Amino acid sequence: MRMVDLIEKKRDGKELTTEEINFIIEGYTKNEIPDYQISAWAMAVFFKDMTERERADLTMAMVNSGETIDLSAIEGVKVDKHSTGGVGDTTTLVLAPLVAALDVPVAKMSGRGLGHTGGTIDKLEAIEGFHVEISKEQFVDLVNRNKIAVIGQTGNLTPADKKLYALRDVTGTVNSIPLIASSIMCKKIAAGSDAIVLDVKTGAGAFMKTAEDAKELAQSMVRIGNMVGRKTMAVISDMSQPLGYAIGNALEVKEAIDTLQGKGPKDLEELCLALGRQMVFLANKATSLEDAEEKLKEVIRNGKALEKFKSFIENQGGDPNVVDHPEKLPQAAYQIEVLAKEDGVVAEIIADEIGTAAMLLGAGRATKESEIDLAVGLMLNKKIGDPVKVGDSLVTIHANRQDVQEVVDMIYANIRIAVHAKAPVLVHGIVTK
Amino acid sequence: MRMVDLIEKKRDGKELTTEEINFIIEGYTKNEIPDYQISAWAMAVFFKDMTERERADLTMAMVNSGETIDLSAIEGVKVDKHSTGGVGDTTTLVLAPLVAALDVPVAKMSGRGLGHTGGTIDKLEAIEGFHVEISKEQFVDLVNRNKIAVIGQTGNLTPADKKLYALRDVTGTVNSIPLIASSIMCKKIAAGSDAIVLDVKTGAGAFMKTAEDAKELAQSMVRIGNMVGRKTMAVISDMSQPLGYAIGNALEVKEAIDTLQGKGPKDLEELCLALGRQMVFLANKATSLEDAEEKLKEVIRNGKALEKFKSFIENQGGDPNVVDHPEKLPQAAYQIEVLAKEDGVVAEIIADEIGTAAMLLGAGRATKESEIDLAVGLMLNKKIGDPVKVGDSLVTIHANRQDVQEVVDMIYANIRIAVHAKAPVLVHGIVTK
Repeated sequence: MRMVDLIEKKRDGKELTTEEINFIIEGYTKNEIPDYQISAWAMAVFFKDMTERERADLTMAMVNSGETIDLSAIEGVKVDKHSTGGVGDTTTLVLAPLVAALDVPVAKMSGRGLGHTGGTIDKLEAIEGFHVEISKEQFVDLVNRNKIAVIGQTGNLTPADKKLYALRDVTGTVNSIPLIASSIMCKKIAAGSDAIVLDVKTGAGAFMKTAEDAKELAQSMVRIGNMVGRKTMAVISDMSQPLGYAIGNALEVKEAIDTLQGKGPKDLEELCLALGRQMVFLANKATSLEDAEEKLKEVIRNGKALEKFKSFIENQGGDPNVVDHPEKLPQAAYQIEVLAKEDGVVAEIIADEIGTAAMLLGAGRATKESEIDLAVGLMLNKKIGDPVKVGDSLVTIHANRQDVQEVVDMIYANIRIAVHAKAPVLVHGIVTK
Repeated sequence: MRMVDLIEKKRDGKELTTEEINFIIEGYTKNEIPDYQISAWAMAVFFKDMTERERADLTMAMVNSGETIDLSAIEGVKVDKHSTGGVGDTTTLVLAPLVAALDVPVAKMSGRGLGHTGGTIDKLEAIEGFHVEISKEQFVDLVNRNKIAVIGQTGNLTPADKKLYALRDVTGTVNSIPLIASSIMCKKIAAGSDAIVLDVKTGAGAFMKTAEDAKELAQSMVRIGNMVGRKTMAVISDMSQPLGYAIGNALEVKEAIDTLQGKGPKDLEELCLALGRQMVFLANKATSLEDAEEKLKEVIRNGKALEKFKSFIENQGGDPNVVDHPEKLPQAAYQIEVLAKEDGVVAEIIADEIGTAAMLLGAGRATKESEIDLAVGLMLNKKIGDPVKVGDSLVTIHANRQDVQEVVDMIYANIRIAVHAKAPVLVHGIVTK
């Protein structure tokens, strides 16, 4: 088999066989096929697409390119959740204890990553003492006993995806549904869960700018998951503005605590319920999605979700008192209000630019070497559709330095006030097959 | 400027500016832009094409990537001819003395190259003593005095094209009209002639399989040439079978001599007249294409073309007696006839496979290191449309070894005899603008 023939086959719109896709991904992983052939092939895929079978094969070829996690020692149906980017996304912090409270095993491997704010581990480390340096045995034992644990990502998972993603990033081949879908799904499948719930973001702040594109991506991922034997569902959710109010690590932990008590932002709660009901249903802990949602509301009402968060924190060395006393979380030295300069209604909050403003404060990493400041970030005081008057606070900046003019300017530039506007629909659709 | 943005711009079907194309080619030549970005860009070009302006810019960017030849010391309008591949193509050997006999300056730089038979220099070296190791001054002087000389290619011409061609070859991006057209034209333009005549082959043995594709390529090259100030014309000619009868170095020299005497194969003569009249006309040595053709026929009839070939050989150290005594050319030890096994009409002679058979005998180079045997090759005894009877010789193999079973088998496999067939049209079209 010669790579040039496979490039031409895809270029000419033909379907590659399983064997051919394995040849490509194995050869690339072993450095036997050079970058310049893979990038030409990826561009051919961009133009000529892949069938569902090819997408599933590509996903599995990338899963098989490295190690995979074996979660079989954990009892029950392990359900993983994945969000495709977004800003101020606190769903994982809420969902993990929420579904664990219904005995859905949450065995989360998480990384730190780059972005507007830290990853899930960074956020949890805002809780004093919390750590993820636990052994694999402790991890399994914690999930079996308490249904919830988080461990730092280890092992060489999906090296082919890492190489391919880095290459796509510099060759104009990022924006291809089959390549995006297989890249996300291979990581989830290698992480070992039995079922997968996907939160596909759409809107100005998301990778998929239109609901149609987001639906196409969601459907593709759901089909890949089901084709390779992992029950998969997806929610298509709005990211035309940041989710919730908090953008920052400690700020998001506080917001998660509020939400687990039923006192969080309505949009965050709505999305957590939409995703949580799929997780609970796929874990066989409810007879229908509706039943699952009722059960989730119940554990919020009766305090079990909050209790689960406390025991989770305690099991991993953290101080569970932060749940009742969130002021124990890291606090920034300064709170600076960004005041509205005109009357009207908030019409636009450009999520990724606002996220970048939070990163400039130190809430996220621009490069792997960046140090995160867990205390800093932004609290939105208004969301799209909210009326504002001159002098109302649009955003509260939590900063550890006084000179935040650049951040203030970015906030003004990315929040538009108009005469009329209404809040966007949050859940654009549900994909179950 | 970032290469990834230019890849995406082309991918999205937009026109690149002159500055952007220069950025790409300069960056690639200096190894500042990696292969993997260029191959993705080339695949985007494959799908999204280039405008005429972009093609001309790409051509000139590749011309400017290296040295160019200055032929200004040579008097008159220097016309270069280029054929796009083909098998048994003896046109250069015929045309050079033919048009020189009409005072068209032929200042040919030629290489050796890979292929079914050698390059023009290899073929001429079948004449004892002939050599191309002459100084630039001698070369200019010979052309000014006698209107014809050949020199080995020197200088680092179009390095960007060399890199890009090698990359396209392994990334499924060879078959793109804008990339083919600019690759051919940049080399011709860098070689310094004032006008260019192109022989674009079409048919089974050619790179362009259909006359439509060949016409598109020819038009693109003619437009590039004229846009960058080189008068350019093209002939679209048939390569559904080898041109003439001879495939081999000494064999083709003999065939060229025959043709310069008006005794050559009809198809070879027809094509040489079609190309030659454009060369003579573009060199301002005739008032019209028809006038040019008459003048060419006249120098064949009156022996001036043959005399020019003799003086050319003599000037470069060769023995001009071979022209009157072609038996002085290298002769192969064995002549083996390949006899027809059935009655009928020759319906197909698959040119590139027949060419490969000649290469297996030693007539051409498979790799740069291969030694050419100037004596060996094939003489076709039948062409498409010729009737054959069992026992007629289809091909005479000229070999320096007795065991040529592999070559015999290839010949049988690639000459098809049917009940009816007629000779293909040779000249499919003329492109003058």
